[in-house]
Amino acid sequence: MLKTHFISDLTPTLDGKEVIVAGWVHLIRDLGGKKFILLRDKSGIGQVVIDRNSQAFQVAKDLTQESTISVKGVVKADKRAPNGVEIHALEIRTLSVAKAPLPLDVSGKVKADIETRLKERLLDLRRPEMQAVLRIQNSVVKAFRETLYSKGFIEIFTPKIIATATEGGAQLFPVIYFGKEAFLAQSPQLYKELLAGAVERVFEIAPAWRAEESDTPYHLAEFVSMDVEMAFADYMDVMHLIEDIFVNMVEYVKKNNEEDLKLLNHELPKVSKPIKKITYKDAIELLQSKNVNIKFGDDISTPELRTLNKELGEDLYFIIEWPASARPFYTKRKDSDPNLSESFDLIFRWLELVSGSTRNYKREVLEEELKARGLNPVNFEYFLKWFDYGMPPHAGFGMGLQRLMLMFTGLQSVKEISLFPRDKKRLVP
Amino acid sequence: MLKTHFISDLTPTLDGKEVIVAGWVHLIRDLGGKKFILLRDKSGIGQVVIDRNSQAFQVAKDLTQESTISVKGVVKADKRAPNGVEIHALEIRTLSVAKAPLPLDVSGKVKADIETRLKERLLDLRRPEMQAVLRIQNSVVKAFRETLYSKGFIEIFTPKIIATATEGGAQLFPVIYFGKEAFLAQSPQLYKELLAGAVERVFEIAPAWRAEESDTPYHLAEFVSMDVEMAFADYMDVMHLIEDIFVNMVEYVKKNNEEDLKLLNHELPKVSKPIKKITYKDAIELLQSKNVNIKFGDDISTPELRTLNKELGEDLYFIIEWPASARPFYTKRKDSDPNLSESFDLIFRWLELVSGSTRNYKREVLEEELKARGLNPVNFEYFLKWFDYGMPPHAGFGMGLQRLMLMFTGLQSVKEISLFPRDKKRLVP
Repeated sequence: MLKTHFISDLTPTLDGKEVIVAGWVHLIRDLGGKKFILLRDKSGIGQVVIDRNSQAFQVAKDLTQESTISVKGVVKADKRAPNGVEIHALEIRTLSVAKAPLPLDVSGKVKADIETRLKERLLDLRRPEMQAVLRIQNSVVKAFRETLYSKGFIEIFTPKIIATATEGGAQLFPVIYFGKEAFLAQSPQLYKELLAGAVERVFEIAPAWRAEESDTPYHLAEFVSMDVEMAFADYMDVMHLIEDIFVNMVEYVKKNNEEDLKLLNHELPKVSKPIKKITYKDAIELLQSKNVNIKFGDDISTPELRTLNKELGEDLYFIIEWPASARPFYTKRKDSDPNLSESFDLIFRWLELVSGSTRNYKREVLEEELKARGLNPVNFEYFLKWFDYGMPPHAGFGMGLQRLMLMFTGLQSVKEISLFPRDKKRLVP
Repeated sequence: MLKTHFISDLTPTLDGKEVIVAGWVHLIRDLGGKKFILLRDKSGIGQVVIDRNSQAFQVAKDLTQESTISVKGVVKADKRAPNGVEIHALEIRTLSVAKAPLPLDVSGKVKADIETRLKERLLDLRRPEMQAVLRIQNSVVKAFRETLYSKGFIEIFTPKIIATATEGGAQLFPVIYFGKEAFLAQSPQLYKELLAGAVERVFEIAPAWRAEESDTPYHLAEFVSMDVEMAFADYMDVMHLIEDIFVNMVEYVKKNNEEDLKLLNHELPKVSKPIKKITYKDAIELLQSKNVNIKFGDDISTPELRTLNKELGEDLYFIIEWPASARPFYTKRKDSDPNLSESFDLIFRWLELVSGSTRNYKREVLEEELKARGLNPVNFEYFLKWFDYGMPPHAGFGMGLQRLMLMFTGLQSVKEISLFPRDKKRLVP
C-alpha cells in the first residue's frame, strides 16, 4: 500500500505521528516562503505544509493540479486546518504528473457545461460534488438491497441477450449473436416473473437498454434497472413494500451521507408511510377541474404532473389503477372494472420513478392481452409455456436508478448521474 | 397478501392457530381416507392434512403436482412432521392448475440430464437443490459486497455498450447502436481503472460477454463479472483483499446456508489466510519435475493444474508473476524482471476463479504494451488520454460469479448455475 492513512483518518489525536498519505493535488498555494498543497483522496481534502528548505519543496515546485503524489509527513494539530490537522511534509514522491492546463477545473472554481463535463468525465468525477453523488448512490443501492434481504428476497441475474422483444418491437438494440439476430433486454420483466414462479421473491439490479431517440434529461439508452417481483402478492402489497424501501433509503442516506448532502446543498424530500395514493380517474378529474385539457385514457405527461404535484402538495405520490389499455400485456385488469388495471406509478414531484402492477398469471388471459396489442402469442411461447405449470399470482415493479438519484441529489439530468452515459450521440468515453 | 405465514414460520408454538399458507403442490398422497399434500414455498416444505368430508378434499381431488394453492388451516403440533407441525386444512383455494404430466420432476425422484433441465428450467429452478444454489449465491454476493463496503469501496455501474474492443478484437458480440457498430463489454476493465483514478476504490457486479465458440462446463457467452479496482495499491495488496473476501464469503455461507449445503451434500473448502502462493516459474519447474511436458511461457491448462493441485495439497492457491507477454496490455511488468508481470490467478483446485494484477499507469508504457500486442494506441485514445491527468498507481481483479459458485455448491457446470444460460446453441429460454 502506498499509504498508511486516508486523509479523513487524520485527527488531532495523531499529533506528532509520522504517516504516509497519497492522493491528488487539489490546489497548490505559495505563502510566506512555504508551499501548501491541498491533497485530495477518496475520504476528503487535507492540507500539506512544505518548508522551503526541504526535499519536498524541490519536488513540489514541479507539481501541477491533479498530479498524484504520496506524502510522508508528520501530523500537526492545528485548529484552523480542515479536521483540525495539517501534514508537515518530510518527503514527497511524485507518482504521476498531470498535464497543464486541465480541460476541466476539478477544484470547482470554474463551472463547466454538461457537454464539457461528460467529455472530460474522469476529471468531472473527481470533483467533490460528483464523489458525493457516487457515495449517495452507493447508499441508496445498499439500502434498497438491505430492505429486500430483510423480507426474504433473493438476488437474481437474468439474461440480457434475448431472442424476442419483451413488450413489442420498438426501441430495441439488435445484437449479432453467433450469426443470429438477438436483442438487448429492455427489462428483466418476463424472466423475473418466471423466477417469482420458482422462488417467490426476487430482485435484480442490472443494466437495461432502450433505443430512445429522444434526448431528454430523463432518458438514457443504457440505464440501471432495479427490479422486484413477488409471488402470492398484488399491487397493494408491492406498494407497501415500496413505502418501506423508500423510507429506508431516505433514512439511510440521511444518516450516512450528511456531509455529501451538505456539499450538494440538497435537502431530501420527506417520506412517510403511507405514501399518498390517487387513482388515475381522480387525477384526471382533478386536472379537468383545474381546466387542464385532458380526458380519460390520455397519458399524464410532465406539465400535468407538475399541476398534480402542486395540487396534492406531496413530493411522492402513487397514481394507481391506470386504464388497462395503456399498460403492457402482463398487467392484470381490475376484477371490478376491467377497463382499469391493478397498476401504479410512483411519482416524485413530476417525474415517474417506479412503475408496477399485479401481473396476469393465467395463460389464456396473457394470450388475449397480447392479441389485443397486436402481438403474436407464438413469439412469446418461451414465456407462456411456463404458465401451464403452476404460475402463482404475482406482482412487482421496476425503477430506474438514475432517475431515483435525481431525488437523492437534486441534480437535473440522468446524464449527470450515469458515470459514462449512453445516448444517441454518445458512445464514448 | 395471499398468505399469513411462510411454511418455515410454522412451529409448535402456533398449535391451534388458524393460518393461511400458499405455495406449490410438491406431492400428494392418499392414506387411510385422508389426503396429504406436501406444500412447498420459498421457505421449505410442510404437510397439509385433508379430511375426507371437507371442502378441501373436493378441491384436492383435482389438484396436480406443481399447481399453486392457498390453504387456510389450523396448525397442529406433531412430532413426526417436518418442523414438528402439520396444517389441518379448512379450505383450499386453487390458484393455478399445472398440466400433467410434468416435463421435469420437481420432487427429485426422477433425475433429468442437463439439457432437459435447461429446457424445462422453470421447473428445474423449483427443485429444492436449485433453490439452495440460489440462496447460497445470494449469500456469496452479499458477503463479497459487505467485505468491500467495510474497506471503503464504492459500487459502480459502468457502460456495457462500448465503441472499441478492450483487449483486442476477438470474442466480441456486435451491437447495432443507432445505426453504428458497437460491442458488448467483455469486462469493465478500462472503465473501472478510470474510476479508481477518480474515487480510488470501486467494485461492480454486472453482466459481461464473451463470444466463446467453445462449449465447456466453465464457459458462458454471458456471465456475471465481479470486478474490483483499487488505487495506490499493487497486486500484493489486492491478493490480501481477496483473502479477506474469500474468508468472509466462506464463513458467511457456512453460517447462513448450513441447510442448503446439507441439501446439496456439499462441504466447503477450508480457506485461511494467507492463501498459498506459488510463482509461475516455480509452478513450471514443479510440473517439469513431475515429468509434465511444459516450458516457461506456456499456459498452464487444466490437466497441469490438476497436477499442481495434487502436489500443493491446497484447495485454493495463487499462481503469481506470469510471463508479461501472456497477460493483457494493462498489466504492469515486474521492475526486477521485466519478462515477468505483477500478476496472479487464483485457482480453486484446477479452475481459475480470479485474475488480477498491478496495472500500468504511465501513458507511454501503455502505448508500448499495446503496440507489442499488435494493437493500435489510436483506437484506445478514449482510455489513454486520461493517463495525462494524474492516474494513480492501481491494481485490481476480476472474478466470474458462476465459476465461483462451483466452489460453493459442488455443481459441475457453470450452465447449471446461470439461471438461463447463454451459449452458442442457447438463446432461449
